[in-house]
Amino acid sequence: MKDYIKIHPWSIVEEGFDASRNKVSESLFSIGNGRMGQRANFEEAFTGPTLKGSYIAGIYYPDKTRVGWWKNGYPEYFAKVLNSVSWNSLDISVDGTPIDMAGTAPLHFRRELDMKNGLLKRKFTVNIRGNFIHAETERFCSMHRKNLGVIRYSITAEKDCTITISSGLNGDVRNQDANYDEFFWENTATGFFEQPVAWLSQQTRKTNFGVYALCRHKWNEGLAPLKTDTYKTDLSAGMGYTFALKAGETLTFEKYCIILSDLYVNRNAFSQQGFQEIQDAYDAGFDTLKKEQTNAWEAIWKNCDIQIEGDDSAQQAIRFNIFQLFQTYTGDDARLNIGPKGFTGEKYGGSTYWDTEAYCIPFYLGTASPDVARNLLLYRYHQLPRAIENAEKLGFTHGAALYPMVTMNGEECHNEWEITFEEIHRNGAIAYAIYDYINYTGDEEYMISHGLEVLIGIARFWAQRVNWSNDKKKYVMLGVTGPNEFENNVNNNWYTNYMAAWCMRYAAEQYEKLAKTNSSRLSEIRDKTKLDYSEIQNWIKIQSNMHFPYDAERNVFLQQDGFLDKELIPVSQLPASQRPIVEHWSWDRILRSCYIKQADVLQGFYFFEDDFDIESHRRHFDFYEPFTVHESSLSPCIHSILANKIGNEEKAYEFYLRTARLDLNDINNDTCDGCHITSMAGTWMTISKGFAGIRIRNGKLHLDPALPTNWNSMRFNLRFRENLLGINIGKKGITVQNIEGSPTEIICNTKPYAISAAGEIFIP
Amino acid sequence: MKDYIKIHPWSIVEEGFDASRNKVSESLFSIGNGRMGQRANFEEAFTGPTLKGSYIAGIYYPDKTRVGWWKNGYPEYFAKVLNSVSWNSLDISVDGTPIDMAGTAPLHFRRELDMKNGLLKRKFTVNIRGNFIHAETERFCSMHRKNLGVIRYSITAEKDCTITISSGLNGDVRNQDANYDEFFWENTATGFFEQPVAWLSQQTRKTNFGVYALCRHKWNEGLAPLKTDTYKTDLSAGMGYTFALKAGETLTFEKYCIILSDLYVNRNAFSQQGFQEIQDAYDAGFDTLKKEQTNAWEAIWKNCDIQIEGDDSAQQAIRFNIFQLFQTYTGDDARLNIGPKGFTGEKYGGSTYWDTEAYCIPFYLGTASPDVARNLLLYRYHQLPRAIENAEKLGFTHGAALYPMVTMNGEECHNEWEITFEEIHRNGAIAYAIYDYINYTGDEEYMISHGLEVLIGIARFWAQRVNWSNDKKKYVMLGVTGPNEFENNVNNNWYTNYMAAWCMRYAAEQYEKLAKTNSSRLSEIRDKTKLDYSEIQNWIKIQSNMHFPYDAERNVFLQQDGFLDKELIPVSQLPASQRPIVEHWSWDRILRSCYIKQADVLQGFYFFEDDFDIESHRRHFDFYEPFTVHESSLSPCIHSILANKIGNEEKAYEFYLRTARLDLNDINNDTCDGCHITSMAGTWMTISKGFAGIRIRNGKLHLDPALPTNWNSMRFNLRFRENLLGINIGKKGITVQNIEGSPTEIICNTKPYAISAAGEIFIP
Repeated sequence: MKDYIKIHPWSIVEEGFDASRNKVSESLFSIGNGRMGQRANFEEAFTGPTLKGSYIAGIYYPDKTRVGWWKNGYPEYFAKVLNSVSWNSLDISVDGTPIDMAGTAPLHFRRELDMKNGLLKRKFTVNIRGNFIHAETERFCSMHRKNLGVIRYSITAEKDCTITISSGLNGDVRNQDANYDEFFWENTATGFFEQPVAWLSQQTRKTNFGVYALCRHKWNEGLAPLKTDTYKTDLSAGMGYTFALKAGETLTFEKYCIILSDLYVNRNAFSQQGFQEIQDAYDAGFDTLKKEQTNAWEAIWKNCDIQIEGDDSAQQAIRFNIFQLFQTYTGDDARLNIGPKGFTGEKYGGSTYWDTEAYCIPFYLGTASPDVARNLLLYRYHQLPRAIENAEKLGFTHGAALYPMVTMNGEECHNEWEITFEEIHRNGAIAYAIYDYINYTGDEEYMISHGLEVLIGIARFWAQRVNWSNDKKKYVMLGVTGPNEFENNVNNNWYTNYMAAWCMRYAAEQYEKLAKTNSSRLSEIRDKTKLDYSEIQNWIKIQSNMHFPYDAERNVFLQQDGFLDKELIPVSQLPASQRPIVEHWSWDRILRSCYIKQADVLQGFYFFEDDFDIESHRRHFDFYEPFTVHESSLSPCIHSILANKIGNEEKAYEFYLRTARLDLNDINNDTCDGCHITSMAGTWMTISKGFAGIRIRNGKLHLDPALPTNWNSMRFNLRFRENLLGINIGKKGITVQNIEGSPTEIICNTKPYAISAAGEIFIP
Repeated sequence: MKDYIKIHPWSIVEEGFDASRNKVSESLFSIGNGRMGQRANFEEAFTGPTLKGSYIAGIYYPDKTRVGWWKNGYPEYFAKVLNSVSWNSLDISVDGTPIDMAGTAPLHFRRELDMKNGLLKRKFTVNIRGNFIHAETERFCSMHRKNLGVIRYSITAEKDCTITISSGLNGDVRNQDANYDEFFWENTATGFFEQPVAWLSQQTRKTNFGVYALCRHKWNEGLAPLKTDTYKTDLSAGMGYTFALKAGETLTFEKYCIILSDLYVNRNAFSQQGFQEIQDAYDAGFDTLKKEQTNAWEAIWKNCDIQIEGDDSAQQAIRFNIFQLFQTYTGDDARLNIGPKGFTGEKYGGSTYWDTEAYCIPFYLGTASPDVARNLLLYRYHQLPRAIENAEKLGFTHGAALYPMVTMNGEECHNEWEITFEEIHRNGAIAYAIYDYINYTGDEEYMISHGLEVLIGIARFWAQRVNWSNDKKKYVMLGVTGPNEFENNVNNNWYTNYMAAWCMRYAAEQYEKLAKTNSSRLSEIRDKTKLDYSEIQNWIKIQSNMHFPYDAERNVFLQQDGFLDKELIPVSQLPASQRPIVEHWSWDRILRSCYIKQADVLQGFYFFEDDFDIESHRRHFDFYEPFTVHESSLSPCIHSILANKIGNEEKAYEFYLRTARLDLNDINNDTCDGCHITSMAGTWMTISKGFAGIRIRNGKLHLDPALPTNWNSMRFNLRFRENLLGINIGKKGITVQNIEGSPTEIICNTKPYAISAAGEIFIP
């Protein structure tokens, strides 16, 4: 665990430079605007440890699969987010000596991620041959102009010197995680417009995504360069500038970059539109662009900020989590999704996991317009044909849909049989997200227009995936991997069976509902999906005859058949030297142990809490939590929420910190690879669903707060249907403000409270 | 299934050339002498489909592991048999046009593997620019001179022509199955002695095995070459010869090659010994060397031939199986073992599997000196320290030994978690082989000198691998893969549990026995293994309280917990289009199906048949066989033996043909990769243990024959202790001849019969 990040309510701050933690900082200080993003690589040269990364949303490459032993059904290729044109470099030399903090340790160094304004800042001093050079930088990916990235780099020298700057666009970028060290780009061209503006054009191999980047520079008017020139290679283009800098004088050098992709701009318009955008940005100037950025973030924070009084560490952490989520995904394009590392690293290929449905959708529902979550649902809706193909590849028929474990474009991107073919509970999360979205937003129309088709595909999959056990006289589901990936190929994972039964029931209910309300649309769907009513009957029959492993003695559902054959030794008895077990134990030992990677039965309780009474919650939490090692970043948040529910404040707070500061403290020692973006949504849930106890039932917002004892108060805005509510939970009571929208009613600790438009209530 | 091989009692014959089947033929016609071997690649150039392969026993390379997703415990590297110096090429041109059957289809073509004499022969005619060229070749790896390979290539032309021959040693050889396309050899040097003799020296990267090869040529005396020269590159050396051949005249060109490895010859002696051996071979001449070869094979066949009257196809097949086994392993070196493809291909890395113990040891026990099987046991004995290390790597302690799934030098060479970490029943086969060897040979001394140490390591492993189930109040074994690899990570695989219990019991018994007979040796072993008597007590306790899945209704043991939850649909109802299922179904579908790849519960019945009555055999065969797809080459033989036992003649014969002609008919469409060498030992067992019903009980040989109805008789020699017995099973009765050894007694159909020295008995 690293704890060098300074506590600050609105900023992530690093003081003093340590090259050994640079890759972690590059992840933490990442910036993005949903359309593009990048790691916090230094502008100037750096020969120390670094993972260079600039990414563009939706641009991927089908990397050839690497496996030890091929299994039938594995994908031949899988989509991977690409490291793309690098635009954030400024090579700077002072009297011919490059600034490179690996070579010349800075005397002073401060790096700051200003989350309020969406700015990456740095301030440092280096001694270059006796000349003290003071630098200040600011960089951002514009939230207002989605194709724009800007850098301001200011240098003041204590003695007269010559500064040379080389800056441009570099297309010679590779993915460290490429399976076969392939170069993923082709047809690179570079050149210049007059001014000069450098441009670089490139396309991905195989997928043929086009990318077009431009850059232009500006510096303070009084300082004319001694010399300017340009450079151009097959894979890069840029400019060189030489300035004579007097002692005490400041050179303020600005770089304006536009990155276009043909996801949004026709290639034929690349140069024209790019040139226009770069000129506009140049003309607007850094201060105006920065103001736009500040305004854009102000608008985001208005919907989603959480203020915690009395716990700065918790305050910093929750803002960091929210900030990274909005940098990753802003929700205006249903082709995009939320990679587990966002734009902060390459790991996991930048693809979509069930994290989106289980963790991110609740976050965006509560903090942004409903369109954002709807776009995430549409992403899966558009990929339904591919999910059907995917199921066919595995032997399913008749429109059964199995969504991939990992995907970019709807095709499976994973190849471990126990995950790819067996961690099928993901299908349930995709159905659940439809329920969750409609329950939160009230957008019943979505079910009719899109949702039911997806539910039919998913219900069909489950109906084919179960089989009748003559032995148990029940439907069983054999050979699955549940959310707890520390078990593989088990029979009757309770969570998966429960989810499957729920999906079939929900699909059948929605079918019947549509039959009553809109028979013409229903017959359209029936025609499109070739659905026969006997299928609905079959789903109902299966879901009511499903086997659920259960232990009568303890009155608990069992994670899977045979769970009680294990040696049940609590995690507390494991020597610290053997943890995390995934790093210390062989896979077989993990599998046959009782140790749980992340919530499994408890994940089911989280989703379907109203199906179980509070005593049942308590029994299951008390049974499973002691065996849970939380070696998935997605585990602590669910446990925090459930701990809150059963009144275990201590555990609730412990798990909150673990999820909230996972990256800031590099708890899993892997933040160097990138931040855990999707689990950050879980952090938000521990506050909203956990400490605030927010639920939506029958179209009403319920509050049931339990403020951590060391917090004075917490305050957050929440989007709920047409209202924006300001909720302040203090030691003395709860204030709810109706910031936007018509009069409404909320339910707090089971009692209803009316709130007028622009009104405020206090609940003691 | 390909059936182009002509039926012949002593030869494998191909008539007419079809390039599309060449890779299958290259496997089938492979030659070897236990020390080296090679695929039947043509001597002359061939530009059609080919897999070039020349291998040297015991020379391996640690190839870097390739996995998709790394699991803790996987080996970083694993040993792989190498394609090594190619010595069997003779590039031949007629008036400047190369002989290449891919370019010029032969008018006549006959390839023969003469199994009686251990010779690979070819005879063909090609038309080269109107000149009919008749060629005859003979090639062998000498069984008498283990480092020698010889080729005789005779050419007769119908018109005057110029023949040029380029022949030498080529070190530029690669493995097609290299994980990262690495070149495995280094420090190649080439050169010439006068005469000329070409030499090539090479060593393997990382493992530094040295190889030294030489070649020299001879031709018929009357034909002086017009021209001779030599060629030499970094990786090859050889000679060129040009002959003027008159119409009707025959050029008989001979190539003598010596291949030394530093497993047997000190590198400093390479050149001296190599030069001596090549001169000796050259001086002896082809006919003498061929006579030696014939004599050597005659001696082998004397011990092991099986003659089947009335079924030429079965006759050819059994001889082919026996021939390939003796080409692969001759048993004089305990460092060597039997790769699944022998010297016939690269697949499976040429490493040792449990096939050796379960299938090959019975074969060599019955057909060769006991030293051969003993060397196979010693191979594992010498690797015991590595097996202990391997177990430690997986978290076991205190001298527990887990033999690798696949190995060359004792280290694990496999990386699929469900196999590497879980297919642990292999450990049992290694213990069983000790029992099998001692039971067959009566060499009780082996237990004292070596066996018990191995048994202790193995018993310790099982004792740590099980756990007490509070639920079942039994010891259970969780997360294993049984012999049926179409199930992974199951709980309580009956076979594995049964094997484990037996191992612990056997080890405890042998311990107690030694305590009574040789307490000083016992205390030596106790000191060496740090064994405490409480361990023995623990083994006894565990084995008597082990859980064995069982179905009371059917009165059958279940392959694993939960087996009856599956849909039990017999294989006969599977559409032919879906078989083999491993090629048509995704892995998850296979896993959750009831289909069995190879004998699993039935493998246990095969090993421990006397623990179960005949009715129990029948019930279990009738229950499991209908679900068995036999997609392992090791399956049909066990089923044939058991079918014989329960009197199901039809099945016994059906499975015999399937195992015996597996490669000759390319039943699994994979003989192109090499022959299934280890399963060939299973073929021999179907005859000896199946149709002849041979068992060893209490030091006596039992016979209980059931001749297939379409066979007139079968006759085979069998080594049993100091006797060589000739057993003839005919329609009218059984003749047993005491060919070698003192008077003995056999038991036939439960009745004892005495046989005098050199005597013969007839049992009607």
